[in-house]
Amino acid sequence: MGPGENASPDENIMAYDLGREIAKQGWITLTGGRSFGIMDASLKGAVEAGGLTIGILPGDNDKNSSEHAQIKIVTSMGSGRNYISVLSSHLIVVLGMASGTASEVALALKSRKKIILLNQDEITIRFFKNLGTYNVLLAKTVAETIQHIKEYVGMNQGVGSTDGQD
Amino acid sequence: MGPGENASPDENIMAYDLGREIAKQGWITLTGGRSFGIMDASLKGAVEAGGLTIGILPGDNDKNSSEHAQIKIVTSMGSGRNYISVLSSHLIVVLGMASGTASEVALALKSRKKIILLNQDEITIRFFKNLGTYNVLLAKTVAETIQHIKEYVGMNQGVGSTDGQD
Amino acid sequence: MGPGENASPDENIMAYDLGREIAKQGWITLTGGRSFGIMDASLKGAVEAGGLTIGILPGDNDKNSSEHAQIKIVTSMGSGRNYISVLSSHLIVVLGMASGTASEVALALKSRKKIILLNQDEITIRFFKNLGTYNVLLAKTVAETIQHIKEYVGMNQGVGSTDGQD
Amino acid sequence: MGPGENASPDENIMAYDLGREIAKQGWITLTGGRSFGIMDASLKGAVEAGGLTIGILPGDNDKNSSEHAQIKIVTSMGSGRNYISVLSSHLIVVLGMASGTASEVALALKSRKKIILLNQDEITIRFFKNLGTYNVLLAKTVAETIQHIKEYVGMNQGVGSTDGQD
Repeated sequence: MGPGENASPDENIMAYDLGREIAKQGWITLTGGRSFGIMDASLKGAVEAGGLTIGILPGDNDKNSSEHAQIKIVTSMGSGRNYISVLSSHLIVVLGMASGTASEVALALKSRKKIILLNQDEITIRFFKNLGTYNVLLAKTVAETIQHIKEYVGMNQGVGSTDGQD
Repeated sequence: MGPGENASPDENIMAYDLGREIAKQGWITLTGGRSFGIMDASLKGAVEAGGLTIGILPGDNDKNSSEHAQIKIVTSMGSGRNYISVLSSHLIVVLGMASGTASEVALALKSRKKIILLNQDEITIRFFKNLGTYNVLLAKTVAETIQHIKEYVGMNQGVGSTDGQD
Repeated sequence: MGPGENASPDENIMAYDLGREIAKQGWITLTGGRSFGIMDASLKGAVEAGGLTIGILPGDNDKNSSEHAQIKIVTSMGSGRNYISVLSSHLIVVLGMASGTASEVALALKSRKKIILLNQDEITIRFFKNLGTYNVLLAKTVAETIQHIKEYVGMNQGVGSTDGQD
Repeated sequence: MGPGENASPDENIMAYDLGREIAKQGWITLTGGRSFGIMDASLKGAVEAGGLTIGILPGDNDKNSSEHAQIKIVTSMGSGRNYISVLSSHLIVVLGMASGTASEVALALKSRKKIILLNQDEITIRFFKNLGTYNVLLAKTVAETIQHIKEYVGMNQGVGSTDGQD
């Protein structure tokens, strides 16, 4: 999860790398499916590394979505889809920050999902840790993020073998 | 699209066959993802023929969903998810009838989706044709249904090559 | 519940009368809140008779909504809001028919709501009665409709006194 | 907007006072409609001061909702309803903090709604100001909050006269 328009170039590069590494592990990448920012860059990285990608789209058709979203879920809900994105994910990686992204992190905490805050600033970390310390992990790099996910998947074996979204 | 609890044994057999044939064509099967009725039987057929399957789930987690839904979209919207199921499909096949199914056909007509009414009775056909003749096709068998879809995909080439939900 | 663009002039007049009579009974009128058709006409009648009105709006703001919707619930869900309209109503009156309206009747049957089909044709009546006979009532006039509602409210006393949506 | 279970006794008292003062101004109080915490206390205050109240409910019926919600919008969307609560409000007052509340503030910023952070800590204020300074106002007391709203309503005259949710 991460911003669209407001993502920085460095964040987009990191998102691309993250998508690649997720795909290499055989995991699925799911984002809000728009055609720019973290959503697009991570899906692009995943597709180029041979992974499967899902976009949870805001509009009432699949126009203007990321060309790297292979499976397109069309919600017609605008930012209301953020809750679906969160509930449909086994684990959430947060890269970059904007209001939509913040709502996803908050809803993920509400739903007791595991969250990895990747490269976030001190205020953001403290704010979300205050809301649900137990489910918040921190990472500075893509490698650390993948390591966290591996540990999480290891603790939740069985999940990975019964469906396609690990 | 079709009923859960209220599907007849014959309808479930036909749904299983339909899922198989959809998968053999390389198309994706998407249903409401519950663990019984048309939803479950068509996903089972699709998986057993090597296809990719998606369940748009009603609850706020993936428990109690069809074990044959490989990709599970968790909506927490109950029957409100029906609109998402419809919008995320390129074409809708309707097998069996119940109130939830009827809402999906109506929303599909509203969204100008192509609909195939498979093995429906006269009242149902007349009711929905009154609401949108142009988008309603009829079929009596799975083979006829697949033929209709092939013609539709043929008329919409390009769709099939850019994403995974044909 | 009833069509927007596709409502006939006679249906709009009947919707206006229905809104007036609902308001005179002290009941609230809730519709999909758009600025034309049955939605607008019934709200107009209700407001002019001193009633309270609610519009469950499709867009992400309250622009273009009926000027007669006093309370505006902004859903950003398009036709996905139909389920909310249904669940938020104690009883549903259906006047005119189109695909969106049909989805509301189907969802109302799914939710086991009481439904009054006002001035509907034979095919429509038979289709919906097949889906849930017990909850479907028929009426030819506004007066008959109001009589049905009175009987329903009488059987559900207590509902009316504890909240504002009878 | 504010927490349910996690609201402190002091926050609930302040919410009750806030509801009272909102009602005295002739404004409508809208909350997530549950039967405890900030949601319940503010609706209770509003009703006791003669105001109109709306609850945007999470479940698929109106059981277990606050008895002080006069108009009950039944969404069947769980926390997905938070976006509807935000979009249906002209201005959002935030009292107390939890993950669901944080998602509402974030979605309000995303929707460019005016937000008053009432009695929030330094981390919370800094986090949300980073996401959208221009729309975030601060208050320490109910009186200050009402003053902010009056100024906002004054700047948006016409809104107040055309609908019922100011």
